[in-house]
Amino acid sequence: MRDIVFIERDPYAPVRHCYAVSKILYQGKSPYQEIQVIESPEFGRMLVLDGVVQLDEKYEFMYHEYLAHVPLHAHPNPENVLIIGGGDGGTLREVLKHETVKRAVLVEIDREVIEVSKKYLPTLSVGFNDPRAIVVNEDGYKYVQDYEKEFDVIIVDSTDPVGFAQVLTTEDFFRFVFRALKDDGMFVAQTESIHYHLEMVRTVQQRLRKVFPIVDLYTSVVPIYAGYWWTYSVGSKKHPVREPVRPVKVKTKIYSEEMHRHAFLPPGFYEKLVKGEFKL
Amino acid sequence: MRDIVFIERDPYAPVRHCYAVSKILYQGKSPYQEIQVIESPEFGRMLVLDGVVQLDEKYEFMYHEYLAHVPLHAHPNPENVLIIGGGDGGTLREVLKHETVKRAVLVEIDREVIEVSKKYLPTLSVGFNDPRAIVVNEDGYKYVQDYEKEFDVIIVDSTDPVGFAQVLTTEDFFRFVFRALKDDGMFVAQTESIHYHLEMVRTVQQRLRKVFPIVDLYTSVVPIYAGYWWTYSVGSKKHPVREPVRPVKVKTKIYSEEMHRHAFLPPGFYEKLVKGEFKL
Repeated sequence: MRDIVFIERDPYAPVRHCYAVSKILYQGKSPYQEIQVIESPEFGRMLVLDGVVQLDEKYEFMYHEYLAHVPLHAHPNPENVLIIGGGDGGTLREVLKHETVKRAVLVEIDREVIEVSKKYLPTLSVGFNDPRAIVVNEDGYKYVQDYEKEFDVIIVDSTDPVGFAQVLTTEDFFRFVFRALKDDGMFVAQTESIHYHLEMVRTVQQRLRKVFPIVDLYTSVVPIYAGYWWTYSVGSKKHPVREPVRPVKVKTKIYSEEMHRHAFLPPGFYEKLVKGEFKL
Repeated sequence: MRDIVFIERDPYAPVRHCYAVSKILYQGKSPYQEIQVIESPEFGRMLVLDGVVQLDEKYEFMYHEYLAHVPLHAHPNPENVLIIGGGDGGTLREVLKHETVKRAVLVEIDREVIEVSKKYLPTLSVGFNDPRAIVVNEDGYKYVQDYEKEFDVIIVDSTDPVGFAQVLTTEDFFRFVFRALKDDGMFVAQTESIHYHLEMVRTVQQRLRKVFPIVDLYTSVVPIYAGYWWTYSVGSKKHPVREPVRPVKVKTKIYSEEMHRHAFLPPGFYEKLVKGEFKL
């Protein structure tokens, strides 16, 4: 490890990560948060918001491929997709790989994240140039309240649920999302880790069960997110999500039909987790 | 995070972990390595060897349960078990939960690790008092060369394969292990992570395939081991390992029949990984 080190300050984790830094590409402050782009010899460029690493170029596929492709392959015909957050563009990039998708609306509260990503993270932000992409600079919590039976898939790609992203895990929000989805729509959100955020995962799952008839949870291992065993919570109006229902034609690094199935926890452990019988 | 911080120095990972420290319980130096036991408010006690965290009390089950119970449940009648390394006692504790086990030999090169664990890590070292446990203070690489068709299961629970643990990943060593196993014996070793040590995982798998007719790989997520998506490499003389062949009677935090199956990677991804077609 070299001498110049970035020390992460994640208020939501019991560990701090230190990464070697070879370059500081950007440092600024938006109305919402501090934004930094640093370069690490091992991870490539990293986007840092309020001191917490949001993505690195090397391993971001472990998050974005899982977040986007599991719901989009579990849905028989996803045409109209809403992404809340995700200003870096990584989730949008994956969503737009689906030929079925006619319109992908990205609602990002912080327009400066998008501008920074367009400039410094070209492999992430590539989707912003797609004519099917619509960018809205607004609060996703408010935006979703204006729609009824509009979207096939809604994806929350937010920062940690502290501060302004906290409302995106409330039962109220899930009810707005339910209303904004078509009759066979589905919802997915990143919901932190099993190891370091178990109570949070459980709470979100329990709230989703009050709103959606089908609720599930899947995971992938994201090395730069403290807790690592990252969870994605699903609420679905009609379709189960454990099996892909369309052939996988998208080009990916790790996502596949078998990895889709494998991402879901075995049913017994999943139930223990939601019921609080799995204790740390 | 409090003001007193332990900064890990893992020569084998592109990240450094910082943990809050509430107490320093032990600091010493054996002929082989520096040994520390520290206490963290979130993780409980942690054993540190040469600056690298080997275990914490809170999450050690994610490693020890997987390392021990997968091979022991895939074997129809494990009576005679050899553990190489594992001086903290965690693997021994799990092995001795099996009623079939008549003898568990633990060969640890560094006797001081065992003494420190007995004193400071009672929940780990509990197995050392079991009459079925035999402790040998010797180099495991040499020890295993003296046996032929002796053991049902051989487990390598070593430090990172740098320094004196490196010989435990050589083809020579795997041939000695093969000879020391009974005709239906099986071998498992911790073999680092998919994300940060992919080349290492691949190399070990390829070497095992030169020696054993059945080779496999399974994983669990260990938060204190940098790379997190931890791998366990298996070489088996006769029995496949993906299915438990005996009912799970041992008391565990997470291991179960379904978690046994789920620990194995889907076959397509596993083959891509070993063949070098999964690239980071």
